[in-house]
Amino acid sequence: MKTFSATEFRKQFPLLQTVSDSDNVIYFDNAATSQKTLAVTNASRDFYLKNNANVHRASHFLSAKATKLFEVVRTKVQRLINAKYENEIIWTKGTTEAINLIAQSYGLSFIKPGDEIVISAGEHHANIVPWQHVAQQVGAKLIILPLDEKGIIDLHEAKQLISAKCKLVAINHISNVLGKINPIKELIALAKKHSAKTLIDGAQAIAHLPVDVQELDCDFYVFSAHKMYGPTGVGVLYGKQAILESMPPYQFGGEMIKKVSFTGTSYNELPHKFEAGTPNIAGVVGLGACLDIFIDKQFLPMAEYEQQLCQYLYQKLSKIEQVQFLVNGCPDIPVFSFTCSGFHHQDVATYLDSKGIAVRAGHHCAMPLLEGLGLDGSIRVSLAPYNTFNEVDFFIERLSEFCLGELNEKVQESLAIESDDGLEFISQDQILKLFNKANSWDLKHREIMLISKQLTRLDKSSRRAQDLISGCESDAWLVASINPNTAKFTFQADSNAKVIRGLMVIILSVYQHKTAKQILEFDIEEYFQVLGLMQHLSPSRGNGVKAIVERIKEVAYNYQ
Amino acid sequence: MKTFSATEFRKQFPLLQTVSDSDNVIYFDNAATSQKTLAVTNASRDFYLKNNANVHRASHFLSAKATKLFEVVRTKVQRLINAKYENEIIWTKGTTEAINLIAQSYGLSFIKPGDEIVISAGEHHANIVPWQHVAQQVGAKLIILPLDEKGIIDLHEAKQLISAKCKLVAINHISNVLGKINPIKELIALAKKHSAKTLIDGAQAIAHLPVDVQELDCDFYVFSAHKMYGPTGVGVLYGKQAILESMPPYQFGGEMIKKVSFTGTSYNELPHKFEAGTPNIAGVVGLGACLDIFIDKQFLPMAEYEQQLCQYLYQKLSKIEQVQFLVNGCPDIPVFSFTCSGFHHQDVATYLDSKGIAVRAGHHCAMPLLEGLGLDGSIRVSLAPYNTFNEVDFFIERLSEFCLGELNEKVQESLAIESDDGLEFISQDQILKLFNKANSWDLKHREIMLISKQLTRLDKSSRRAQDLISGCESDAWLVASINPNTAKFTFQADSNAKVIRGLMVIILSVYQHKTAKQILEFDIEEYFQVLGLMQHLSPSRGNGVKAIVERIKEVAYNYQ
Repeated sequence: MKTFSATEFRKQFPLLQTVSDSDNVIYFDNAATSQKTLAVTNASRDFYLKNNANVHRASHFLSAKATKLFEVVRTKVQRLINAKYENEIIWTKGTTEAINLIAQSYGLSFIKPGDEIVISAGEHHANIVPWQHVAQQVGAKLIILPLDEKGIIDLHEAKQLISAKCKLVAINHISNVLGKINPIKELIALAKKHSAKTLIDGAQAIAHLPVDVQELDCDFYVFSAHKMYGPTGVGVLYGKQAILESMPPYQFGGEMIKKVSFTGTSYNELPHKFEAGTPNIAGVVGLGACLDIFIDKQFLPMAEYEQQLCQYLYQKLSKIEQVQFLVNGCPDIPVFSFTCSGFHHQDVATYLDSKGIAVRAGHHCAMPLLEGLGLDGSIRVSLAPYNTFNEVDFFIERLSEFCLGELNEKVQESLAIESDDGLEFISQDQILKLFNKANSWDLKHREIMLISKQLTRLDKSSRRAQDLISGCESDAWLVASINPNTAKFTFQADSNAKVIRGLMVIILSVYQHKTAKQILEFDIEEYFQVLGLMQHLSPSRGNGVKAIVERIKEVAYNYQ
Repeated sequence: MKTFSATEFRKQFPLLQTVSDSDNVIYFDNAATSQKTLAVTNASRDFYLKNNANVHRASHFLSAKATKLFEVVRTKVQRLINAKYENEIIWTKGTTEAINLIAQSYGLSFIKPGDEIVISAGEHHANIVPWQHVAQQVGAKLIILPLDEKGIIDLHEAKQLISAKCKLVAINHISNVLGKINPIKELIALAKKHSAKTLIDGAQAIAHLPVDVQELDCDFYVFSAHKMYGPTGVGVLYGKQAILESMPPYQFGGEMIKKVSFTGTSYNELPHKFEAGTPNIAGVVGLGACLDIFIDKQFLPMAEYEQQLCQYLYQKLSKIEQVQFLVNGCPDIPVFSFTCSGFHHQDVATYLDSKGIAVRAGHHCAMPLLEGLGLDGSIRVSLAPYNTFNEVDFFIERLSEFCLGELNEKVQESLAIESDDGLEFISQDQILKLFNKANSWDLKHREIMLISKQLTRLDKSSRRAQDLISGCESDAWLVASINPNTAKFTFQADSNAKVIRGLMVIILSVYQHKTAKQILEFDIEEYFQVLGLMQHLSPSRGNGVKAIVERIKEVAYNYQ
């Protein structure tokens, strides 16, 4: 057996080679998307520069070359998951589309009123909402399999809940929040006993486990290229041939057509029936260039290395007093979700970001799972085999110092100045002064945290639903009032995350006690630019800044 | 005004720089997909190598960078088509998906039984079949606007056919077959008069014309990046904000969600509502790198150059006696469809391909249009501003020599040998001998054409529907019989295209008078490899080879 070297493996990923201080990154957000190998990007590029043409439709030699390069990847994917036939591999734009395709094509055709669709409490939104929609469309019932205390689907409960009424069991192979492998072989067997079809969401599994769809005997298995070192915009839908053949097309257009006339249309064979329109040819070709990682003999030692990394991180995290794992036990792949007692998850993530560590905070597109655990979010740390023990150590050090409240203790050294009480709010000039002195993201981040104290907190009874601004990572509240004499607005704001409160202070420093006209005219993006925050806090939905700014402008606009 | 130099423009496209004899290509298949600029491929690659992260969902700095790079392209596209709001730009995987989205979201919500959906006789399948499907789903009626003799939608007829019953007019800006600009401004105004919404399929227009959606006042405008020098797997759906807001989501998953619980789900705002799942981030970033071509001042002189090229080609083609244009008059953009009297379109295309000229033959995903003209296919030549007058000259020379039958006259010099009559069919050895002598694609192509004569033609009454093998470019018939004593198959085959008849001779040289076992065991791909045909004739659907081989194997398999 080959040995595996993370250092060597890492060399395939140019983004991880950047070593300048300002750019160095510890990328622990692999469950969201993995980094890409140089081979992947070169394959897509070479395709465009040497072989670009549309596929299937013409017999000129460029098209023949392109078609061959495109179709050979289908064969490779077939081998990767051991599908019986090549035409069982359907290209989609990602896992989400693959599930939507099955829901609308299989679901609407074969699920009837009163039937049951079974999912689990640990699904990603992409494997919940399409089924809520189908259930509503056909009048079927959605059944939720609960998880046990370890975070995997409870088999005992599943035996009670999966009945003859069940037409489809749609569950994840590995949860994107918990990193636990579900007992899918047993669940597939259970579903088969009741003649139900099975769909496995393999988005988180495909890069970490060998997958054999014939051995699993599932009816559908879906995953995305971009989580397995491949390009964005490419997904795979595996389906058993007979079932795919029984399903109507999902989208209509070129390629999936046998014959079109205005009186009727007949459809092409598999896989083309499900591939309307020009596919993501260069993306598929790019995917082809990373599949060797999984087919090669190095895969097993790589998985073993990953296991060691996983155990190591689990032990280190377990020693931090404030860390509360969402479920019991070490995850099966290095995807860790936890909270830190006393700290908002977004504050943890933002602190780590200020130290160059990319993790995720929020609901991870699995709100029902988080809510079931009584949480509004968690920190998620997800590793890949190019991550190292050193990176884990650095991360653990930063997390420990955060939890030990190093930041809080150093308040006295703060650059922050006290704003005047009462109606006067901290001014733009004061903010500018603070941020000009803080000349790194690390220091700027600290300033944000420190000025967060300028915000008078709203008591909980004032946090009304209509004032809520939902963000992906944290919630915020904004209450506006206007002085009819001066036509100036006063805003009160709050958030559970300290970092958001800090950002609100910056935002209010320009909008507080201003007229609608002044509010609408002010260029906040430029202000963020000047403060040196744009690079890290572009007003995107992720950090809630955009949502807050938009709410303020909406209030101003409606008053005009 | 800047001047435009095709030579300079061409330099941006590395694929067109290959000058080695074997690889030189005259790419005249731009309506299928355009070539890509180096900037496009570099932008996607740089994204992966320097800024790769998932967008919108996290606030770590890589994600912030990625989100900014991704969203700035939305703003660029907004400016390109002069959309009023940024959130009117929705990313899809292509034009086809964009139309399907509108059909299933807008169509199913707002089109009722008895309503009418109006398309034209000149639509691409992608703008026909989604509407046939919706019409069937809701019980609406599909109305077809006829074209006039020039190939544009007949306004006079349209005035009769678009009535108060019409809920949507879905038409192309420019036909992908005819290259004629439809009077969409008038048609949009007409639709508005009846309160019908309008969808313009701009796939063929966007690279050739300035598009201003506010001036057009259409409700939807859709196009693909890959036909405008950009990447595959990216499309744009423009829709008026109010209409998009009134429409339900199309796909469900991450990103398009505001709140998910097992009791109900609420959706995100525009544009996210329609962008479920991780988007084709690198593709969108790639698109951003070619938009300057259209926004730059060079666009008008470029369009002017294209016009000159178009006129030049039209005049040259008009002088070839055998050339029959599908409609009257010079096309508005350099997309020419024609037939050559006495020759099958696929034979013309294959001959041109053997001379290094990539054109398309077939129905161009517009079967009803071709059928309406009484044709089963045509040759399509489509140019871009990187094409040159010299390329046009070379093409015209090759086409002229083909039409003059140079090939036919030289039959006597053929390397081909006469096969034995009767049951003996030309043997593999004989084929091998012929193709080994022919050491270029040009010569091999000639051999294919010459051996086509070995095939006894089926009389038309023997061409039964059940024996038909539909290809994209030409039809073929295969009749099988078996000798019960020897268990060997005899095949009779025919096609309207000479090149297909030649390929059938090659195929039958291995399958004729063989048992089912022999047929199923033979590796035809390897045989094509040895003959040196794989490179040009990979058994893809395009040239029908795959379909014929599969039909033969199916016959053998069913007999076993």
